[in-house]
Amino acid sequence: MKKSLKKDCLTIFKAGVKAVEPYKAVKHYLKVEGDFLHLPNHTFNLSAFKNIYVIGAGKASAYMALALEEILGDRLNGGLVIVKYGYGAALKKIKVVEAGHPVPDENGLQGAQVLMNLATTLGKNDLVFCALSGGGSALLPLPVVGISLKEKQDTTKALLGCGASIHEINRIRKHLSQIKGGGLARAVYPATLISLLVSDVIGSDLGIIASGPTVADTSTFLECKKILERYHLLPIIPRAVRKHILMGASGKAPETPKPRDGIFKKSIYLIVGINSQCLEAAEKKAKTLGYNTLLLSSFVEGEASEAAKTHAAILKEVITSGRPISRPACIISGGETTVTIRGRGKGGRNQEFTLAGGIEIAGWKGAAVFSAGTDGTDGPTEAAGAFADWKMVERAQKLGLDPYHYLDNNDSFHFFKELNDLIITGPTKTNVMDMIVLLVR
Amino acid sequence: MKKSLKKDCLTIFKAGVKAVEPYKAVKHYLKVEGDFLHLPNHTFNLSAFKNIYVIGAGKASAYMALALEEILGDRLNGGLVIVKYGYGAALKKIKVVEAGHPVPDENGLQGAQVLMNLATTLGKNDLVFCALSGGGSALLPLPVVGISLKEKQDTTKALLGCGASIHEINRIRKHLSQIKGGGLARAVYPATLISLLVSDVIGSDLGIIASGPTVADTSTFLECKKILERYHLLPIIPRAVRKHILMGASGKAPETPKPRDGIFKKSIYLIVGINSQCLEAAEKKAKTLGYNTLLLSSFVEGEASEAAKTHAAILKEVITSGRPISRPACIISGGETTVTIRGRGKGGRNQEFTLAGGIEIAGWKGAAVFSAGTDGTDGPTEAAGAFADWKMVERAQKLGLDPYHYLDNNDSFHFFKELNDLIITGPTKTNVMDMIVLLVR
Repeated sequence: MKKSLKKDCLTIFKAGVKAVEPYKAVKHYLKVEGDFLHLPNHTFNLSAFKNIYVIGAGKASAYMALALEEILGDRLNGGLVIVKYGYGAALKKIKVVEAGHPVPDENGLQGAQVLMNLATTLGKNDLVFCALSGGGSALLPLPVVGISLKEKQDTTKALLGCGASIHEINRIRKHLSQIKGGGLARAVYPATLISLLVSDVIGSDLGIIASGPTVADTSTFLECKKILERYHLLPIIPRAVRKHILMGASGKAPETPKPRDGIFKKSIYLIVGINSQCLEAAEKKAKTLGYNTLLLSSFVEGEASEAAKTHAAILKEVITSGRPISRPACIISGGETTVTIRGRGKGGRNQEFTLAGGIEIAGWKGAAVFSAGTDGTDGPTEAAGAFADWKMVERAQKLGLDPYHYLDNNDSFHFFKELNDLIITGPTKTNVMDMIVLLVR
Repeated sequence: MKKSLKKDCLTIFKAGVKAVEPYKAVKHYLKVEGDFLHLPNHTFNLSAFKNIYVIGAGKASAYMALALEEILGDRLNGGLVIVKYGYGAALKKIKVVEAGHPVPDENGLQGAQVLMNLATTLGKNDLVFCALSGGGSALLPLPVVGISLKEKQDTTKALLGCGASIHEINRIRKHLSQIKGGGLARAVYPATLISLLVSDVIGSDLGIIASGPTVADTSTFLECKKILERYHLLPIIPRAVRKHILMGASGKAPETPKPRDGIFKKSIYLIVGINSQCLEAAEKKAKTLGYNTLLLSSFVEGEASEAAKTHAAILKEVITSGRPISRPACIISGGETTVTIRGRGKGGRNQEFTLAGGIEIAGWKGAAVFSAGTDGTDGPTEAAGAFADWKMVERAQKLGLDPYHYLDNNDSFHFFKELNDLIITGPTKTNVMDMIVLLVR
């Protein structure tokens, strides 16, 4: 039964990933008929525009750009997308720059500058597509004039070290960047801007994807100052950063673009890939495999091993009482958990989720747990995730492996490598966070 | 809206608790018609028995005994139940002993001895009811001959201190007790034994409730020896305990009664109160209040604040997409979470769950989180649990309270006291662990 449970998990996972493949998704949502470009809620007369460009950044952006090249054909004038090393695609008119991620590098800095130069040359009769996806933030490193990339990075480090939340850090980052927090939209204006987004964040706050280069920013310099004060960082951060934030807070530096800013009147957004689309396609596939399905949530966060316990609790209820759905059952959820490092092993959030889940369902006949990153990578490992069934603990013990020990040591990768239950897919060219599949026959 | 959401949570919770009120539950499941006693799957001819007794231990046992007194009337000869201080009831024929819990005391020791004396006098024509519920383990402290209560307690402490699991500790406890792990069933034999159980444990492993005085034990002395060896405790534990375990492991001390033991042929079990019954009744009530319902799981375990995140993730999905159920929605689950103490505050697992949940749902209009212990107590506080809605964080901040700070300090009690959102019910006279209710209008 193990083999077929594992096969089903993989089939369900792959169906989900396929639905958010950026090349296909862009082609699915954007159609050109004669002079007209149709989007789900908009239609544009392409011949009304003088120039058409494609810009963007993020892991999935080269394939979004490829689709746009094919859709726009001769109408496209050119463009530039910045992607992570190894994430490029063969484009004809759009330049592809590969750059450092998650740590920005010189390629990213130069690429971001070229991208901004292009954006500022656009006029009111131009149309620009902006293909944004996860990783775009690190790939578009362009601090405001007077602050170096290193000074910006040192500020982020100081914030991380003092326990600031990721939302607090992002507010400050947006205020130190020319591009983030709507900066790119301001540069592109007065051209018409269509942002195509593949989301790698929980929920649908567009301003978080790639730090929202084309999205209005609701945070202020004053808030940034308060955050730095709260963590007593004002005396510690680089002088240039302190000066910029304090000037902004006293109204002497320009704010990031705000929601009511006129520049956003010519700006529309289309999410072409998001976790819930992926889960929906996975659910559809599970149904065709004969499972009763429960699409639980696309908002799963928190400690991986603990989220696994709550998921396992639902599976146990299914087995015990046929609630909330009856066997054969498939529970699907998504999001992105985290791992608090306690040990010195190798693993990722998906593999740790699966290890903890496998321990929980030990002996619950017919049950299986699967978790994998839709981008095909999980933490600093070559696996996308892992699979476990109700005999995982038994099999491990026969091999002399203690699952609790591997979990305590955050060593899920080596555990599942020994059990031959790593899920290895290679890069999938998309990223809408993770998918969790629980099965019980 | 807050007021009515809170009221609905309380109404749903109380309906659940009412369904597992032990007095009512025993009367619901046991009916006497003429000479016949009807149980859900058994019928007994009461006049075939010479004597009928009621014994038992646990927080809910006095009220189970009261129901049995009323059901059995003149046929009842007598009996004895041991309950926690303050958990007694006015019984006519059955003696009630109040004793120490969670730390056993002299009253418990003496009560357990009297109970065993009664049990061993029973003959094959006698019928005995054993009313067991949570707390019964501490209330029936009777070590095997040659081991003192203190030596047994020191062993438990040593096991707790070295990281042994609760299952490992229970195996050893059963092998150091005259009563636990089937010992009481052996004493009662050859009388007919009907165990009535109110479960305060996850799942339906009867051997865990009150450490299973009437349930066959599947663990062995050999396993106990291995556990002590694994944690290097053999040289550390009291000499009498070491001697007993080693003698048992070499076959020189009698094993606990095993599943195939003949004594269990005259033994039946009836769960009269369990978390899932409570959740089912709560779900029914939620439906009458107009909510679409999802009974998620009665197996919820793990870190309270993390379980809250996964629950909140499901609520967010309901709000965002109308999945897995549409508004107005009520998600119900149960079990018992734990809290890893990091701070120095006052709280309980239910209050901490609610605080973490309240943070998660901040701003999600119409959403509410509720968690409470069905016994009316939550940790070392006078509250049963707490309530939070989507404005909890906002209200707290207006009062100058930082919810994150209270959560980090495990100080949920004082947080909700300030917000006037503690749930205080007083003792409910039952205990089937906790209930979680999530609402969204």
